[in-house]
Amino acid sequence: MRLFDYHASGNCYKVRLALAELSVPYERVPVDIFAGETLTDEFAQLNPSRTTPVLVPDAGSPLPESGAILLHLAEGTPLLPDEPADRAQVYRWLFFEQAELMPAIAGLRFRLLTGRLEPDAPAAQRRRRAGDDLLGLVADHLTGSEFLVRTGYSVADIALYAYVHVAPDAGFTLPDAVRTWIERVEAQPGFMNDLEPYPPNARPDASVSIYDA
Amino acid sequence: MRLFDYHASGNCYKVRLALAELSVPYERVPVDIFAGETLTDEFAQLNPSRTTPVLVPDAGSPLPESGAILLHLAEGTPLLPDEPADRAQVYRWLFFEQAELMPAIAGLRFRLLTGRLEPDAPAAQRRRRAGDDLLGLVADHLTGSEFLVRTGYSVADIALYAYVHVAPDAGFTLPDAVRTWIERVEAQPGFMNDLEPYPPNARPDASVSIYDA
Repeated sequence: MRLFDYHASGNCYKVRLALAELSVPYERVPVDIFAGETLTDEFAQLNPSRTTPVLVPDAGSPLPESGAILLHLAEGTPLLPDEPADRAQVYRWLFFEQAELMPAIAGLRFRLLTGRLEPDAPAAQRRRRAGDDLLGLVADHLTGSEFLVRTGYSVADIALYAYVHVAPDAGFTLPDAVRTWIERVEAQPGFMNDLEPYPPNARPDASVSIYDA
Repeated sequence: MRLFDYHASGNCYKVRLALAELSVPYERVPVDIFAGETLTDEFAQLNPSRTTPVLVPDAGSPLPESGAILLHLAEGTPLLPDEPADRAQVYRWLFFEQAELMPAIAGLRFRLLTGRLEPDAPAAQRRRRAGDDLLGLVADHLTGSEFLVRTGYSVADIALYAYVHVAPDAGFTLPDAVRTWIERVEAQPGFMNDLEPYPPNARPDASVSIYDA
């Protein structure tokens, strides 16, 4: 299988981390989103919404959306419990991450690191308040728990780890329970971290227009 | 089971629609989010991120996040295929809806209908452009297909239907392929629509502060 992948995207790193944990071989196909490589007709055939990552199996349809890829890869492995109520809690954290945590934390980090927002702008302060609340919520949930779901380390942890462990880049302070959970994730056999910084061409004056502040 | 539910929320309506399609009995517990009923300590016990819906099973943990609830309810039913590649495509549309379609379309509709944004504000125009692109993408995908996933009607259709069928409230024009798909969803046995309009207390001058424009 091939993974169409952007090296500085937390959503892409999630998938690479799951593939590493599961020792699944794959071909990595780098996509430079700020050079416009997601805007081609060829990329639209893989994913009409033009986001990364996209997993392309040897046979069958391309699969966009990091959460969908994580669930698909984890099926039948220890990273996704079988029991319906536990599985449902994995789903819950995956959707929470995409709908709530990512806009606040990853959205702010991206805009600050690439010069799209100043730290004291109202839009930055709104995302910081939201992100602080969400990190507190995650910390409360992890207090007394090793991982997000009671059955142990799962794709829910992988999904949240990707942007939470770099939240300090955006000025967030990680609560103690989150910091110790990060250490537990990083101590997993098979853990690796190859998330790269945003390159110079991700700055708005150097990139194809993809994101609004 | 009990469903903590806001009558004017598309995310809540999705779950009610799936429950109706599956003929699952449940107790509906109305939550008036604009009267502050999600801000109580009791509600935080059900869902610390204070969103609706929350499904509370007779035994076990409360389940927030509409996408998680849909997958959980649909397990083992015709609304969620068993075959891994088809299941993965259902996941894909559920994440797409929450991460991309909902902010653009439902976010704009909410802000316009409750007086949080004027139609010609730059923030409204940004969401309208994004929503138009996403509706076009869905239309292209549905051209030549009856439903979003090749195995037939699924929770992916339910998830997208909830906010897409009311997109014209926010000034969106539905492409033909989307309109005919809406008719197919509405022709399903068990279909019902009890999504209510936003009540007067959802306007910012009448409500507890929950949402920023």
